[in-house]
Amino acid sequence: MYWREEMSQKFVFTCVDCGKKYSVNRQVMYLCPVCSSQNTGEQPPSGALKTVYDYPEIAKRSKRFKALRNNAYIDILPISDPANLPPLRIGNTPLYRFTKIDGKRLPYVFFIKDDSQNPTFSYKDRASALVSAYAKESGIDTIVAASTGNAGSSIAGICASQGQHAIVLVPEKAPLAKLSQIMMYGAKILPVKGTYDQAFDLSIALSDKHGWYNRNTGYNPFTIEGKKTAAFELYDQMQGEEIHRIFVSVGDGVIISGIYKGFEDLIELGFLEKMPVIVAVQAENSDNLVRNMETDTFAAKASHTIADSISVDVPRNFNMARKFLLTYGGEWISVSDDEIMEAASVMARNTGIFAEPAAAAAYAGLLKYDKEDKLPASTNNVVMSTGSGLKDLKALRGSIEVPEAIEPILQAVEEAVGSKKAVSSRQ
Amino acid sequence: MYWREEMSQKFVFTCVDCGKKYSVNRQVMYLCPVCSSQNTGEQPPSGALKTVYDYPEIAKRSKRFKALRNNAYIDILPISDPANLPPLRIGNTPLYRFTKIDGKRLPYVFFIKDDSQNPTFSYKDRASALVSAYAKESGIDTIVAASTGNAGSSIAGICASQGQHAIVLVPEKAPLAKLSQIMMYGAKILPVKGTYDQAFDLSIALSDKHGWYNRNTGYNPFTIEGKKTAAFELYDQMQGEEIHRIFVSVGDGVIISGIYKGFEDLIELGFLEKMPVIVAVQAENSDNLVRNMETDTFAAKASHTIADSISVDVPRNFNMARKFLLTYGGEWISVSDDEIMEAASVMARNTGIFAEPAAAAAYAGLLKYDKEDKLPASTNNVVMSTGSGLKDLKALRGSIEVPEAIEPILQAVEEAVGSKKAVSSRQ
Repeated sequence: MYWREEMSQKFVFTCVDCGKKYSVNRQVMYLCPVCSSQNTGEQPPSGALKTVYDYPEIAKRSKRFKALRNNAYIDILPISDPANLPPLRIGNTPLYRFTKIDGKRLPYVFFIKDDSQNPTFSYKDRASALVSAYAKESGIDTIVAASTGNAGSSIAGICASQGQHAIVLVPEKAPLAKLSQIMMYGAKILPVKGTYDQAFDLSIALSDKHGWYNRNTGYNPFTIEGKKTAAFELYDQMQGEEIHRIFVSVGDGVIISGIYKGFEDLIELGFLEKMPVIVAVQAENSDNLVRNMETDTFAAKASHTIADSISVDVPRNFNMARKFLLTYGGEWISVSDDEIMEAASVMARNTGIFAEPAAAAAYAGLLKYDKEDKLPASTNNVVMSTGSGLKDLKALRGSIEVPEAIEPILQAVEEAVGSKKAVSSRQ
Repeated sequence: MYWREEMSQKFVFTCVDCGKKYSVNRQVMYLCPVCSSQNTGEQPPSGALKTVYDYPEIAKRSKRFKALRNNAYIDILPISDPANLPPLRIGNTPLYRFTKIDGKRLPYVFFIKDDSQNPTFSYKDRASALVSAYAKESGIDTIVAASTGNAGSSIAGICASQGQHAIVLVPEKAPLAKLSQIMMYGAKILPVKGTYDQAFDLSIALSDKHGWYNRNTGYNPFTIEGKKTAAFELYDQMQGEEIHRIFVSVGDGVIISGIYKGFEDLIELGFLEKMPVIVAVQAENSDNLVRNMETDTFAAKASHTIADSISVDVPRNFNMARKFLLTYGGEWISVSDDEIMEAASVMARNTGIFAEPAAAAAYAGLLKYDKEDKLPASTNNVVMSTGSGLKDLKALRGSIEVPEAIEPILQAVEEAVGSKKAVSSRQ
């Protein structure tokens, strides 16, 4: 624990497992020390902390949602000055409305929130931004994380924009393509002879020893606070219209917890009456949340899915995500890799949004609900698209086939274009 | 030429070479028929058309710039209804302000306009959006283009969002990674046994014969009209502050022409007094604009640069770009591939913006000017960053080196992190 000079008593932490309250005045804190003391790595970690604010006081100060929004939601974030957030445009991603799929009009409406439109091209920037700002306000100039993927490139990019140092630990097997973005941002990359879990634990040992700030997912409570901003934006963008269902891809369970937390904040503040139904979507072969939702003891299964960013053996934020889902009547399903790749394709060709497989999984969830007629007429359904398709072009290799090359003459081109029905002009 | 039913006489075309005016009421038009009749492909094509509006009339209607902006600049675009633009967030990209590089305070200020924050992650969406809207207003539902890169994926994505058909012709050698994004958007891809020029010519034959709309760069005049919107945004985002220099990477010369055209429109409308100095930046080994700026006869040199998106033998929009540069006191330089890769790295680690090599070339131009002390104190300089670094990870292979893996023990990690000076906490 590192003590800081200035910190307003803006929030307290409550342990998601034992419920104990922690006043965090002047200290950096990650997990409930009591509950986390027994964590092994084989079971989902205990002791995740939820950040709780003085809601009645905030509601008094920001009577209208606009007041909250116009001040970058700072009243309901664990930092004190919006100037400490990164100078990049983070969040405020577009929400698009759709009423058709492949030409077929739907009885319901669905929306896609496109979080590929973030500086490092994924949802993770929401978490990194807040973690970075908190480090700045705490006088810490180095942030450590274990990640091979979007979280790693996100904290690297955000730190670059803030003049902070980023140290990213990765398992040595991580492929170069995944590390390129991290390294371009100037982060110190440390390949570790071992597993992701070993890199994770070392990153904690390193940040603890040197007083650096740790951004690990499912460990730093402010990753959830950063990720909740998408809920605020959704509420804002829907302009008072009810959201009935939100499809969210789940790996570690931090994004889904963040979205729940955001809506919970809005309910606590009196802006929202009812929690939307949130649907956790996992890959069939990485379904360690979904499969363990209704069991007493967690049983991990080795994950292998094409949806790399949600391929997780032991979800780091299992307990919190599960609790949110159970408390608020959430739903959970899994989708196959084929369904995910098909969804990525249907989504791109219908909407112009090119999502990485892990993001397309949420859309696959929507398609599955559609197929099973589980989306009532006139409901509003949201798909969270969490990362750019450019993040994982390799995943497409199996599912894309380039047609054979044709002779460079008009007739051959016309034949290849095919029947005029398929591609026709209305002229 | 295909005739359409409804078209307001909102604009005329003028040929950039002979100056002839064309009234385009009821017709789709690409090049000046007189000047383009002698085009061979070995020389830059003649007959590019500039879109000219009734400026005094528009200035009367939109006395203030805000009025223009608040109606999606429709008064000064060749379409009649903003509802025909794609439903995606196109343009309105962030402009970031910087005063330091690698910790050194600069006497001048520079800005980066980050156009990776577009739906398909490049500047090209600005052109595709307008072309798509124009096709819609013309009752044409199929758009054809020849492209292996950003223009191809852009038109594919934009058409997907608009329910239009896209046909993209590519030379057969184009690598799968470059085609993945195009194909995911559901575009019809046609690999042609031949060169890019053959694909280009075939795409024109195809669109002409079937009445489809052609988006080819340096051919369809509205690619320039679409690309000019970045100038409007820059003017808006600078809030009255003068822009002294703008660095723009140049391949075919369409983006730079678009930016010139946007500022020219603003001057014609009386909003702006003086054209900023625009600096055309090319790769040393693809410098067919720069090298031919001051010669009487154009001499092409085969291009081979790591900055793929600006690798061009015969710039398709040479004549117009050259004329703009000469008319408005523009400047032109070339940068080496090493300088480009170094610039991409300096930019990413200083700003958090990860740009593809072709985009980083503009930043390399800024760095070169800085080195040569050519940026006066207190001036405002803009770098146009035209595409995401994720677009071309392959280019990084040579310049990125992953450190050796270390033992999974804290001491080894600490040694790898290096001296405490390099990465230190202020605690």
